[in-house]
Amino acid sequence: MKMDRWRASARRILKLSSRPDRAPRSAPDRGNPARYGSLHCSGRSCRGTQFYFGHQQPLSVHLREREFASGASFIQSRWFGSMATKIQRNPKFATINSDDIRYFTDLLGDKNVIQDEDALLAANMDWMRKYKGSSKLLLLPRSTEEVSQILKYCNSRCLAVVPQGGNTGLVGGSVPVFDEVIVNLGSMNKVLSFDEVSGILVSEAGCILESLVNFLDSKGFIMPLDLGAKGSCQIGGNVSTNAGGLRLLRYGSLHANVLGLEAVLANGDVLDMLGTLRKDNTGYDLKHLFIGSEGSLGIVTKVSILTPPKLSSVNVAFLACTDYLSCQKLLLEARRKLGEVLSAFEFLDEQAMDLALNHLEGVRNPLPALHKFYVLIETTGSDERSDREKLEAFLVHSMEEGLISDGVVAQDIQQASSVWNIREGIPEALMKAGAVYKYDLSIPVEKIYDIVEEMRNKLGHSARVVGYGHLGDGNLHLNISCPQYDDAVLAQIEPFVYEWTSKHRGSISAEHGLGLMKADKIFYSKSPAAVQLMASVKNLLDPNHILNPYKQLQELIEHNLMVKSNAIVGKWSSSPCRYQSEHWLSSLGDVIQHLISAI
Amino acid sequence: MKMDRWRASARRILKLSSRPDRAPRSAPDRGNPARYGSLHCSGRSCRGTQFYFGHQQPLSVHLREREFASGASFIQSRWFGSMATKIQRNPKFATINSDDIRYFTDLLGDKNVIQDEDALLAANMDWMRKYKGSSKLLLLPRSTEEVSQILKYCNSRCLAVVPQGGNTGLVGGSVPVFDEVIVNLGSMNKVLSFDEVSGILVSEAGCILESLVNFLDSKGFIMPLDLGAKGSCQIGGNVSTNAGGLRLLRYGSLHANVLGLEAVLANGDVLDMLGTLRKDNTGYDLKHLFIGSEGSLGIVTKVSILTPPKLSSVNVAFLACTDYLSCQKLLLEARRKLGEVLSAFEFLDEQAMDLALNHLEGVRNPLPALHKFYVLIETTGSDERSDREKLEAFLVHSMEEGLISDGVVAQDIQQASSVWNIREGIPEALMKAGAVYKYDLSIPVEKIYDIVEEMRNKLGHSARVVGYGHLGDGNLHLNISCPQYDDAVLAQIEPFVYEWTSKHRGSISAEHGLGLMKADKIFYSKSPAAVQLMASVKNLLDPNHILNPYKQLQELIEHNLMVKSNAIVGKWSSSPCRYQSEHWLSSLGDVIQHLISAI
Repeated sequence: MKMDRWRASARRILKLSSRPDRAPRSAPDRGNPARYGSLHCSGRSCRGTQFYFGHQQPLSVHLREREFASGASFIQSRWFGSMATKIQRNPKFATINSDDIRYFTDLLGDKNVIQDEDALLAANMDWMRKYKGSSKLLLLPRSTEEVSQILKYCNSRCLAVVPQGGNTGLVGGSVPVFDEVIVNLGSMNKVLSFDEVSGILVSEAGCILESLVNFLDSKGFIMPLDLGAKGSCQIGGNVSTNAGGLRLLRYGSLHANVLGLEAVLANGDVLDMLGTLRKDNTGYDLKHLFIGSEGSLGIVTKVSILTPPKLSSVNVAFLACTDYLSCQKLLLEARRKLGEVLSAFEFLDEQAMDLALNHLEGVRNPLPALHKFYVLIETTGSDERSDREKLEAFLVHSMEEGLISDGVVAQDIQQASSVWNIREGIPEALMKAGAVYKYDLSIPVEKIYDIVEEMRNKLGHSARVVGYGHLGDGNLHLNISCPQYDDAVLAQIEPFVYEWTSKHRGSISAEHGLGLMKADKIFYSKSPAAVQLMASVKNLLDPNHILNPYKQLQELIEHNLMVKSNAIVGKWSSSPCRYQSEHWLSSLGDVIQHLISAI
Repeated sequence: MKMDRWRASARRILKLSSRPDRAPRSAPDRGNPARYGSLHCSGRSCRGTQFYFGHQQPLSVHLREREFASGASFIQSRWFGSMATKIQRNPKFATINSDDIRYFTDLLGDKNVIQDEDALLAANMDWMRKYKGSSKLLLLPRSTEEVSQILKYCNSRCLAVVPQGGNTGLVGGSVPVFDEVIVNLGSMNKVLSFDEVSGILVSEAGCILESLVNFLDSKGFIMPLDLGAKGSCQIGGNVSTNAGGLRLLRYGSLHANVLGLEAVLANGDVLDMLGTLRKDNTGYDLKHLFIGSEGSLGIVTKVSILTPPKLSSVNVAFLACTDYLSCQKLLLEARRKLGEVLSAFEFLDEQAMDLALNHLEGVRNPLPALHKFYVLIETTGSDERSDREKLEAFLVHSMEEGLISDGVVAQDIQQASSVWNIREGIPEALMKAGAVYKYDLSIPVEKIYDIVEEMRNKLGHSARVVGYGHLGDGNLHLNISCPQYDDAVLAQIEPFVYEWTSKHRGSISAEHGLGLMKADKIFYSKSPAAVQLMASVKNLLDPNHILNPYKQLQELIEHNLMVKSNAIVGKWSSSPCRYQSEHWLSSLGDVIQHLISAI
């Protein structure tokens, strides 16, 4: 019976003429207070010239006008006022004085030196209103040279700096903790070149991802990354946080696609690594140090990136599975049968679906009944008929094998969009449902759902545990939803969730970085020897530690907070399955001695 | 008329049931004196256990038995005896004494400490017989712990070390220059794990690439890289040199596919970065420092790599173009029309074809006439019929557009193999034709053939200039063939070829690294600020510079050879198009001061 319905549905598969717009997107770009208003593009036609993604109004005006969207009023605030009692402001950093302001005003002009409290409010706070700094100064450089002069000056004065892009992160990485100077790259938003033969795009770091998407669309290309926050996030921020997103399964991470970078070091030196070549084996590939280092080693000012051609045929299927093992088997089958056209393999559990149905406007279940698990599969290819046939054959086979119990295939772009809206709307639904503890974990695929179930058993009725994410990449978004924030609940979640992830060789931050939220938790995912080397690299590139402080290892040392990591290291080294390394440290003394010797 | 023939041919396209074997492969694995004899695989069935790619005989016996293949007698020797007069042995390095031998024998056992001169000969020399060292000691560790103990001891004694894999490189990176201790990883050849859901393979660094290919084949997966040298090269060497090869167009570089590494630092510390996750944003991604650093920062001992599923349908077309512009347009068209199934886009010019036809046994022109340019296109997909139709539609359209003047599509695996043999046989044909100057360049696609023509104009009748390579990756293999080596010819080629490449924003080493051959040429492709940072990183990880000396920047400094790079820097900074960086150094004094301050 179901099979008949399925097959009837499969026969009606329609190709979509282009990738669904998916608008309105879910958080973080829905209701995102950091959004800089609508930007428009001009001048897209000629190659080798500069294309400006300019603001209709000066950025400073936009900043002053930024108000929290009314939709954000439902979001429970959880400012980390308490964090400031745990992490003290580092007294070695200078505070801004009138001479500093004069210097920056001379360098950048009045309108690019923001001191107005209202305008600073949005830049001081993340979009979730979870982290809030107290910076008195926001700088808006317009060129690499200006960024260089800013950092050179700040380094000489020992003024701490927070590099900021679209401010769409989840871990507080792009907002100040105390009074750091905010350097926002939003005014550096030019496309510098695009090569239509090779698909290589060179742009300034402040280009909004969506502006680049629109620019490339007119050329027949796409960005190799796509995020919910694309309307606000900047490519420089994407690179600095190694943003993952929805296309990673198909095109790989930014380590795979970024061909070159220009970055300004803490002392103002400009490091030109802005190659535009797919292959270049001359010396160490230093650009990778800056991809994912969250602005702690330098400020990325220009990006060269390989963009794939836009493919015309997109199909979306929304499927139901009775258990997690079936989701896994379906993934393996999709890799084999859909191979080169598979472009997304997302999953959500019944709790996630329930939240989406209850809290998102206009969202309905495309299937007639509720199920334990749902999988969203997208294919993208160059030939409509053959892609459709491939998907249909795959679906019929999977149904026959009992891997899927029901499913629908989007018949047009609206249906595809509404299916994507379920998956992408979950973060917003969670925010509307109450307080939420969010964890972004990489876990070997076969273990992914174990942590959700263990957490559910542990918390009982005190919270709702929700699992969804990029299953094709082994990336779980584990969310724990409660009526309100409760330290007793948090104590049941942490450090359990980190310990569990570490024990199963996972990563405690798959795609969102460490930021402030996980600044003291790196040892759950990295060996002490690796962290020691990271500290040495930080010391080499930013010896005064002015770049994005309080979010990096050396701050832990400076503030004698190693006791936390010691507890972690103890667990880490006692975990027998953790690669059996004999070289990791086992005591607090060892850790501190090694780390201090590296600094 | 041609069109009819073409279409008749296109209609007869047959799918190939699997990727053509392409055996016998061209150099470097044909007639490669570094080949360790045939290795066999055992134990492939269970997951989570160890699979051994063991030697039938102990490696030391193989090494003693290694003789130059008779086929190598046609290769003109060009040992760099003169190099030793340019680069002096660094007197700070100790020489091996009997205590050292005793230490290594106690550690590794007699049979893994090779001092026999005959056995050492092969390890002292590269397969082209171009570079020859005089090492008295070859060590064959069997575990990470043994590598660690070796390096710890060498570092404490200041004994220089050359890490060696399959010794198949082209730039002398894996052979000693003087009496460095050779550490060959060939005995560390176990597969440690394979996850069939995610396709993640973890192996020791000494696994031969072809052994891994065979192992994965039985699981329905492939390696994301494929090289002519796959029968000899080791995965650790591939990673250390960031080997490119034939699948880069489709799957990206090793920066895209290596998920984790274990490496031993110069002081013996083991750096565990052996993650098996697609996404992990916790701290700096240090593994990228070791990918492509040619063994100068540490010895890679284990590799975790993402492997794609094996796709069943492979098609190969061999096409003729009348000019280079048509090759470029064809590439753009192939990206758009073949999109997700395009797996190779190689090109060769008429000179390359002529060499292949005249010097390779059993090679014939698959087209009835000679042409200016030839393009080899390979597609790989999951559906035979649709792939075939896509290729056919693409070929017919390209013919109608006048981009291709003739072409054939392989009808079976033998035809596909014979077409690949033309492309892959060119290096061997060049070696047979006489002396050859080889350059491995990355150049923006639209400029690639300009350097071939300029070089041809420059050299006139004194040499034959041959152009071929991975056009889809912007990678030209420029070869200059002469009856014999002639310094007058070399003086016409260098530094012109490097200057030209630098001027056009290319790379002087696309996929083969710097090694000894280009140890003093990094400034042609990298900015002084970047080189300075590389030197600092080297100093941080290997302060005594024991790892792979004479091939890295610090050796230039130690031997006061900066005058060469000064000349280069002068040209570099005066090149107006080179990214307009204001921060690059412009004088010898600046360069030396900056570089020395970094060391």
